[in-house]
Amino acid sequence: MASIIDKNVPRIAVGAFYNQENCDITSSVTSAKETGHDFIILPITHSNYKRFLFDQVDNNMQINDDIIDNDKQCMEEWRKGNPFLKDDLIIKDNEHTDYLVGKISEWINLDSSNHRVRTNSEIALKQQLSWVSHLGLSAILAPTPTNSFVNYARSLNTILGSLTYTHIWMRIPLINEDTSCSNEIEMWERWNKFRTFCENHSKLSIALELPADLPDEVILERWFAEPIKAVIFPTKIFLTNAKGYPVLSRKHQAFVKKLMKYKPNFVIFDDMTNKHPKVGFAVYQEYIRYLNRTMPELDQIEQFGNGYQDFLQSPLQPLMENLESSTYEIFEKDPVKYALYEKAVYHALLDRVAPESNEITVIMVVGAGRGPLVTRSLQAAEKAKRNVKIYAIEKNPNAFVTLQNMKAKVWGDKVTIVFGDMRKLKSPDKADILVSELLGSFGDNELSPECLDGAQKFLKSDGISIPSSYSTFISPLSSSKIHNEVSSYKDLTHFETPYVVMLQSVAILAKPKEIWKFEHPNRLVVRDNEGNPINNYHNTRYSKVTFDVKFGGILHGIAGYFESVLYKDIIMSILPETHSDGMFSWFPIFFPLKTPIYLPSNSTIDIHFWRLSNSQKVWYEWCVDTSFGSSIIQNVGGRSSWIGL
Amino acid sequence: MASIIDKNVPRIAVGAFYNQENCDITSSVTSAKETGHDFIILPITHSNYKRFLFDQVDNNMQINDDIIDNDKQCMEEWRKGNPFLKDDLIIKDNEHTDYLVGKISEWINLDSSNHRVRTNSEIALKQQLSWVSHLGLSAILAPTPTNSFVNYARSLNTILGSLTYTHIWMRIPLINEDTSCSNEIEMWERWNKFRTFCENHSKLSIALELPADLPDEVILERWFAEPIKAVIFPTKIFLTNAKGYPVLSRKHQAFVKKLMKYKPNFVIFDDMTNKHPKVGFAVYQEYIRYLNRTMPELDQIEQFGNGYQDFLQSPLQPLMENLESSTYEIFEKDPVKYALYEKAVYHALLDRVAPESNEITVIMVVGAGRGPLVTRSLQAAEKAKRNVKIYAIEKNPNAFVTLQNMKAKVWGDKVTIVFGDMRKLKSPDKADILVSELLGSFGDNELSPECLDGAQKFLKSDGISIPSSYSTFISPLSSSKIHNEVSSYKDLTHFETPYVVMLQSVAILAKPKEIWKFEHPNRLVVRDNEGNPINNYHNTRYSKVTFDVKFGGILHGIAGYFESVLYKDIIMSILPETHSDGMFSWFPIFFPLKTPIYLPSNSTIDIHFWRLSNSQKVWYEWCVDTSFGSSIIQNVGGRSSWIGL
Repeated sequence: MASIIDKNVPRIAVGAFYNQENCDITSSVTSAKETGHDFIILPITHSNYKRFLFDQVDNNMQINDDIIDNDKQCMEEWRKGNPFLKDDLIIKDNEHTDYLVGKISEWINLDSSNHRVRTNSEIALKQQLSWVSHLGLSAILAPTPTNSFVNYARSLNTILGSLTYTHIWMRIPLINEDTSCSNEIEMWERWNKFRTFCENHSKLSIALELPADLPDEVILERWFAEPIKAVIFPTKIFLTNAKGYPVLSRKHQAFVKKLMKYKPNFVIFDDMTNKHPKVGFAVYQEYIRYLNRTMPELDQIEQFGNGYQDFLQSPLQPLMENLESSTYEIFEKDPVKYALYEKAVYHALLDRVAPESNEITVIMVVGAGRGPLVTRSLQAAEKAKRNVKIYAIEKNPNAFVTLQNMKAKVWGDKVTIVFGDMRKLKSPDKADILVSELLGSFGDNELSPECLDGAQKFLKSDGISIPSSYSTFISPLSSSKIHNEVSSYKDLTHFETPYVVMLQSVAILAKPKEIWKFEHPNRLVVRDNEGNPINNYHNTRYSKVTFDVKFGGILHGIAGYFESVLYKDIIMSILPETHSDGMFSWFPIFFPLKTPIYLPSNSTIDIHFWRLSNSQKVWYEWCVDTSFGSSIIQNVGGRSSWIGL
Repeated sequence: MASIIDKNVPRIAVGAFYNQENCDITSSVTSAKETGHDFIILPITHSNYKRFLFDQVDNNMQINDDIIDNDKQCMEEWRKGNPFLKDDLIIKDNEHTDYLVGKISEWINLDSSNHRVRTNSEIALKQQLSWVSHLGLSAILAPTPTNSFVNYARSLNTILGSLTYTHIWMRIPLINEDTSCSNEIEMWERWNKFRTFCENHSKLSIALELPADLPDEVILERWFAEPIKAVIFPTKIFLTNAKGYPVLSRKHQAFVKKLMKYKPNFVIFDDMTNKHPKVGFAVYQEYIRYLNRTMPELDQIEQFGNGYQDFLQSPLQPLMENLESSTYEIFEKDPVKYALYEKAVYHALLDRVAPESNEITVIMVVGAGRGPLVTRSLQAAEKAKRNVKIYAIEKNPNAFVTLQNMKAKVWGDKVTIVFGDMRKLKSPDKADILVSELLGSFGDNELSPECLDGAQKFLKSDGISIPSSYSTFISPLSSSKIHNEVSSYKDLTHFETPYVVMLQSVAILAKPKEIWKFEHPNRLVVRDNEGNPINNYHNTRYSKVTFDVKFGGILHGIAGYFESVLYKDIIMSILPETHSDGMFSWFPIFFPLKTPIYLPSNSTIDIHFWRLSNSQKVWYEWCVDTSFGSSIIQNVGGRSSWIGL
């Protein structure tokens, strides 16, 4: 069934699922194919296989504990493990393997209080799973966990480890329509417990069944952090358009289009409500494919990030390591970032020097790289009609070669290039404006504060720094997918390392809050005779922020963002609410928690964050404190991750 | 300071602790020695070292953010890391190293909202710890965590890893006397968070300070699960007896005597209340030593278990492995177990055969080992004046040699010895009474059910089994000590293995509840022509039990016990409430949780337990479910621990 699982095929997989316990496989498959489906979900056994439950009931409809001796003998023989009789099976052989998803019998009752029913259910479950796994089916639809399901979880858990190719799709209705009290997150909590019991096994995923009424977006949000392998559309949830054709509500459409980004399989479930009597079964799948075709084009950030969703990258260490040319190349392509810098320099020049003045404004670009900020500063000066002298300071010897070429071929005399580390250089001149682009996803995590502390000695006492400040924000985050990625390294170091990630399969549990800020220039620092700070304690930070989490979830880690004031009201931000439109230079940063913490709905958590330093390095430590447990303090003393000074 | 930490010295260590921030070390040590103390707690620095906090306050008593430039310069120089000046130190050199416990300055304020005070506090903390660690002091008294203490935890955590010989004793008042609302478990919760933040570091332990009024025993209980290295007695908590001498209340005495079993250090804290003006400071320590001398003698179980407290042992596998002679030797010494068996056989004989009858009662001892039950059955018959014929069946070839000797030298003709496995033997005769001792700490965990299933074919249809039933009980348990022991193996297998443990450093979080029961003979099982069960499904079990946990704690695992009915009202039990007096053959069993779960006060937890089987083995799986998180299902498919059939 390669067509279902191959994510590179733009065509989506839509399957058929008929509401029947007995059927003829040949005619079902033929019919599904004729109506344009890519696969079909079929029961593994005929319903009469239920006889092996031996769930004889008495007059009061209670399961009878005394079954007749003959049955008892027959049951014990069956329990020894006999093969299926071929007439018990709907999925009999390999003929349609690539086209089939097997369905486990709904009558299996693993949480019966009756030992006999429970035991026989487990044997039947194993028998069915073992059979379809033998046939090599790629997926099996498993029944929805009922209110008590721990023995179901245990039974399935035992089998998960033995599956090689086959995945379990667990049928999870997005909302529990059985209960009168509508607890909108109850099904999520049920699923969450089930998979926790099963150790988040990678073979266990969700077939999410959509209801007629979708809950609030914040409730829907949580499902994006889950491993959804299939989405089930009961035919009754479709509305009818003017022509009598089935369509989905706008809210459904929006949710389905979001789900499409995760490339699940889609399933049309004929629930026999016969809601659109004049049209055939084919039109539902055609409609879903239509939705897929009318997905909006990817925006610039999505295009840039395509393929990087939920992929863990280590943050750059541009101070300790010299960046490669291709890295500069990528970041110089950002259409937004350099326009913001140009605007900032432009306004700073306007404010600093009167029009028509002949005064020369000294601009120093510290950490000039291959020179994009030099070019933009020249353009700003031209636009502002101000005279400037520009210094380009860079410590990367390879980038410095490009700077020499740029000076010779493009910039000319207005630009002076200087090779060296801004923290150690002797001042060539005093600057009016200091321009730098030293920010990481977490703001200060590429050591902008320490670098600008050093560069500040080049700045006039009334000089301007662009950026003038940057603030760091964090949010509690849920993502079993990303946490599993980190877990797969099986060591502490990876749990105590931040990652740059384009977040996709995540639920943000509360809005970001600011934890700290750096402002430049910093005139309060005590400096030695060379003009350098005596130590780095002024750049340490500690912050505790409290979050209210309205809807429960698993806290897997902390997302980090920055927002920077380049100059006055010119803001550059990767914070979701104020994100600079179309800027792709930074993905958010992710700090994992070693042990995920379950947060009930309406809970309060404190996140503590530190920026710490000694003479060789800077590092972060973080921990979470709740009224129902707390984490360890992660990355003590920078043992697992740090940034070299 | 070997006298403090050497646990083999029966004499306890009692130290002096004067309430002073400044003192002369020579006179303090001399005075403490003269008053009979084994060590003294002294501040590391003089109080004037506080000047380095630079916590200048303004007129409103707020910490002033602007300190004068001269101070600023001086502070930054100090922050670079200058050595102590010798006049700043009370503990100056190595002279009294073995007699000293250092005390960190109380003025250190790591959770100040002021960056300067916080930063300087951390530098001072590191400096003090580094100095006493350099001197090789064995312990340091650290201040009580205040209401907000996360930065204190982080600062201490950073240092813990660098300590080699020195331990931290954290001063924890058993009750927070500062607050008007008396939350009796608040201090425990504070401590619990603190050590969680510090990853349960083994260098971090408690100096428990006793209050004048002790809370309920159930509150006191929880402290026994904690690493208490010292117990502090403020002089004000002592009452005054008729002669004007200090004594402790009965409740205090009982608690202190319990604590003495853990061999902590004791500290007399002169709180300057001068409550017993007519006596010298020596009498407090003399009184504590008096309490130690008047500890009750160890009972039989304590004597037997001495040295085994909290020590993890793997359960026996007598079916798969043949026991050694010394193992039989130990268990045969139990003064209670065999008396109970003799009583059970005696009453069974009385009930089964009329007095004066000549009828011969056939007794089969299955799994006879070296024969203790044979001897006891003969004694029971003699006492009951009944004629018996005894079969002794044993599969261990080594034990069988002893049986041959016993028959030849002691038992004679009344006893027939048979070599073989009771599950496979052909019946030599039909028994009236089947006697077995196949129970493990968890009841059925040495496969008594499976063995007796096999042996049952030797039993007459109205025959008696001794034991006639056994039930398994579990309790939720807290013990960071035992959990750390399991963690130290650093693998999943050890977290999924049960251990036999003499529980000492534990808190039982709720009373044990029964999870399942086995009864013999079991007449309901379907058997094959040989009389053996067709499969083992009738011996599988699944049980969910719900516990109400009144006082919060960390759930580290599950304690297991059994209670067995040998015959009618003759009970053999290792359940705390019904424990057979003086019986030492079984310690409880402990099932670990891979990830401990924090339980708030008044919480409810479900524990699910399974006994499962295939044709080769029997194993247990277990999991915990709470409304604020759940565990994985441990030991899936018996992957980590099992008992071979």
